Formats: sequence, structure tokens, C-alpha cells
Amino acid sequence: MSQAPAKRILVTGATGFIGRHCLPLLAARGFEVHIVSRHGAPAPQTRSHRADIMDPEAAADLLRRTRPTHLLHLAWCAEPGFFWTDRENLAWVTASLNLYRAFVQNGGRRLVAAGTCAEYDWSHSVLDEHATPIRPATLYGVSKAALHSVLASVAALDGVSLAWGRVFFLYGPGEKPHRLVSDTIRELLRGRPMETTAGLQKRDFMHVADVAGAFAALCDSDAQGAFNIASGEARRLKELLATIGDIIGRPDLLRLGARPMNPGEPPCLAAATTRLTREVGFRPQYDLAGGLRNTIQWWQSHGLAEA
Amino acid sequence: MSQAPAKRILVTGATGFIGRHCLPLLAARGFEVHIVSRHGAPAPQTRSHRADIMDPEAAADLLRRTRPTHLLHLAWCAEPGFFWTDRENLAWVTASLNLYRAFVQNGGRRLVAAGTCAEYDWSHSVLDEHATPIRPATLYGVSKAALHSVLASVAALDGVSLAWGRVFFLYGPGEKPHRLVSDTIRELLRGRPMETTAGLQKRDFMHVADVAGAFAALCDSDAQGAFNIASGEARRLKELLATIGDIIGRPDLLRLGARPMNPGEPPCLAAATTRLTREVGFRPQYDLAGGLRNTIQWWQSHGLAEA
Repeated sequence: MSQAPAKRILVTGATGFIGRHCLPLLAARGFEVHIVSRHGAPAPQTRSHRADIMDPEAAADLLRRTRPTHLLHLAWCAEPGFFWTDRENLAWVTASLNLYRAFVQNGGRRLVAAGTCAEYDWSHSVLDEHATPIRPATLYGVSKAALHSVLASVAALDGVSLAWGRVFFLYGPGEKPHRLVSDTIRELLRGRPMETTAGLQKRDFMHVADVAGAFAALCDSDAQGAFNIASGEARRLKELLATIGDIIGRPDLLRLGARPMNPGEPPCLAAATTRLTREVGFRPQYDLAGGLRNTIQWWQSHGLAEA
Repeated sequence: MSQAPAKRILVTGATGFIGRHCLPLLAARGFEVHIVSRHGAPAPQTRSHRADIMDPEAAADLLRRTRPTHLLHLAWCAEPGFFWTDRENLAWVTASLNLYRAFVQNGGRRLVAAGTCAEYDWSHSVLDEHATPIRPATLYGVSKAALHSVLASVAALDGVSLAWGRVFFLYGPGEKPHRLVSDTIRELLRGRPMETTAGLQKRDFMHVADVAGAFAALCDSDAQGAFNIASGEARRLKELLATIGDIIGRPDLLRLGARPMNPGEPPCLAAATTRLTREVGFRPQYDLAGGLRNTIQWWQSHGLAEA
């Protein structure tokens, strides 16, 4: 084999919402970027591989062929609404552990993987990597937290550098339907009313390009442990919705309070982000209004036809 | 297929230290007992199957053929000393999740699996299923705790009844070498000195037949959640060693204090056992002296030649 580049990264979930925004950012940071998907879909500035990483032998073969120094593992079941209880969460735990072993066996040194704010105890209103208990209430959160605990333990033994990025709430160009921000934008752009809860609950929403930027920064860092991937500014949903209404010029179409809150919906999920800003040195590019404006422009220019 | 029996159980790890003691107890409770091992080793009163349950397809095929109502999952990596950091712990997490799915897909209703006292925070001296935090310090403990959290979450969704038996310290006929009780008995029976720590630390030791009895009782119960598998009586190791010395008649061979304590060795690991005694109705047959006498007799009659 010819001389290996200093930074060769393999990205799973590269065709997903976060993944596709990561690829140019990783290339810009000097990574030789390899991506894997079941269909081998190509992407600019990357080398594309076709493999089903659910298959342990296919995953092992892929890692033998690519021998990445870095692994950014984003792939997981993510069907809106359904992923919370999807039995595929178990298969993703096993696939992730198999992938880890193949990565280490082929010389891997730095692993960055996607966790979730749903790992935390949501009775706390500010979710902090050190202070907040891990007490997930869903199969999705449980599976992510279980995977993280095993990876953290084995990576320490193997001398592998591990960062675990806990994703909060996100939005942006290309978001799937049946999510709050994408549905609100599309309904209002079509001149149709959008029915929501009263929107009193506070959440930390981050533009997907910033989420991807945080993951790229983590890949290019040696910071270890769990890191909240969030803006650090939780806002009430009604404020977010009003901002969308104002940008589109149709605040009259918002029907706040038309739908009840889910029972047990926590009033506030704010993220501590000092680890991300201080230890990784990452700061988001978008504020909420700017990020929503960017997203609405994307839907206006080429999004509505797809939905 | 002919009419299925009401209680058909598949046992993994059936040739292991705990497993082999479970089989007659399960048969006595009216289970149709199926066992699986890589070599298909037979055992009385059971139907033996040959399969490598590390192979997902072999496991799925086995469950399709046997369609057990109950699964007793004891198999895990267990090489004395080495299992704490064995990277095979990851493979056992994945094998266990695969096994679970195949079990449920083929009509399984009740799962009993082996956890460990090493899941708990060992800075606590009485380890209680409800009150003691799960904070494992080893890859083994982390892997078992992670598996339990995922199984508990998915079993609740699937309507599968789950009991998780956290095994403490055990001894008995057929124990592997390089364990405290087996080594002490064999050295003293051979007239050789046994060097140990001062033995001030308290541990809950249970005879393996009682550990197996507790698992059989759990299988035959519908009690759900985590259950400590322990005697409820923690003793200082020096008391346990002195009892062995007295029964063999060679207390003079004990060299207490000849070896240092491992740093970080907790002074007391006692088990709360009210869940096991009240909710499952199980009580051990052996006290410590009786259990050690039984074990020493076994080594005297046919054990020494094997070691």
C-alpha cells in the first residue's frame, strides 16, 4: 500500500441529514474522506464505497480495504417518530460494536460517533455532560447510551481516542417531512395553516450545518468524552414558530395551541455547551433567525417540489 | 409441529459452571430443556443442539427450530482474571442482542439472563437493586449493564417478561482453577501453603448449586427486573479461608497477609437479597460451612486429578 495519509476518515450515515453536511467540511480540514452506503452513492470530494455495514463481514472487509485513521459514525435508524421505539436500535448497537472492532483491528485511532440528548434524564432542564444523570426513557436513548458506555470502556483499553457528540434538536435544508421546522415552513410557504402545541416548551435548536461543523471539529480534535452538540441557546417553540411566520410573512397561518402537549413532554431541554466551545473551540455560524432564513430560502428555491 | 409444551426452555452456557448445575433443576420444574453449545455436548434430561450462537444466522436458525417459550442466557466470556477486560465482551453484547431478537421472533415469552454485581458502584458496601447506582468500572461490568439496559427497554416494548440475575461471588464443585476457593482447597488438600491477602474484605459467596437454583426459580417465576443472586450473608475472606482450613484440617497452611490487597479493592461487597427471597421465594440450601464441606468432598473424591 502507498503511504497512508495522516488523516483518512470513513463516514457512515454520509447520505443522511447530518452526514452530507459534514463531507465538505471534513475535506476542507484536510481529511481524505471515504463514505459508505448501501448503494455506494457518490459525493463530491469523497471516495465512495458500497457496503451494508449491518453485515459484520462486509464491515470488516470495508475497514480492511480503507484502513481509516478516523471514523465518523453517524449511521442509525432515524425514521421520524418511529425511531424512538424502532427494534432496529438493537441492530445498530450490534453493527456499531462490530464496526468499532474492525476499525481498531485495522489501525483506527480516533472515533467520533453520534449520541443524543435523549440519553439524559429529561427531568433536568439544563443537560450537562458531567452533571446530568444518564437516564434515557426510550429504546433509542437507551441504545445510544448503552453503546456509548461500552465504547468508552473499550476505547480506553485500546488506546483509541473517542468523542461522543450528543445531538439535540436540529433543522435545516433537506430535513425530512414530519418534523416541526420542515413541516411548518412547507405549510406556510403553501399558504396552509400549521397546527401546533402552544409552544411554551424550550428546546435547543441548531442549524444542521452547525451540527455538521461541530462533528467535523470533533473529528479534527483530540478532545475526548461526551460533548453536547447544541447552540447553547434554548428558545420557546412559539418563538421559533413566530420567527418562521415572520420571515415567510404569514404569521397568521400559525395555529398555536391547536394541538395538546404530549403528556410528559419536558418544559425545558437546554444544553450546556461549554465543553464544545472551550475544549473543541467550536462556535456555530448561525443564530436562530439566520438559520431559519437560510432554511426557508432553500425550501423556496428547490424544496417544495420534493415534499 | 406437534403441540408445544407449556414450558420449553433453551439454555446457553449450559456446559459452564452455573449452567450445568441448572439443567436438572429446570427438568425437575417441568421444563422441556434444550441446550446449545459449539460442540453439541449432551447432558442428561436435555435435548442438545450444536450451534455457535456468536453467529447470528446460526442463532436464528436454532431459535426457529426449537421455538422455546423460555430462554436462560448464561453464555459469556468467563476466563478467570481475563474476562474483566476481554474484548470478547463486545461480541457477547452483540450475540445476546441477536439471540434476543431471534427468541422474540419465534414466540419467546420469558427471558432470564446473567448479570453481575460488577454492574454496581463498588464504593457502596451493600449493593441493592433499587438503591445502588449502576456505575461499572470494568469492560465486563459495563457490557453487562449496557446489555441489561437495552434488553429491559426492548422487552417492555415487546411484552417479553425479563429477569436479570446479578451474580455475586460463587464457588463449588467443578470450579475452574485460579479462583480463590478452588485454589485454596486444592493447595491445602495437596499439603501446600496458600498465600492470600489478609482477607479483611467482606464478600457474599454462594454455592454454585444455589446460584443455579436461584436461576431455575427465576425461570419458573414471572418476577421481572434485576435480582441479586447471592446468599445475603457477606463474610470476611479470612473467615471463609479459615473454614476451608478447619474442614481440611490444615489451617496451618494458610498464609494470610502474604499477598497485598489490590489497590482499589472494595472493603465490603454485600448483597441485598430481599427481592430474591420475597418476590421469587428462593432460599439457598447451603450455608457457607456446608457449602464448603460439599465442595471439598467433591475435590477429594474426583477433583484433584483434573486440575
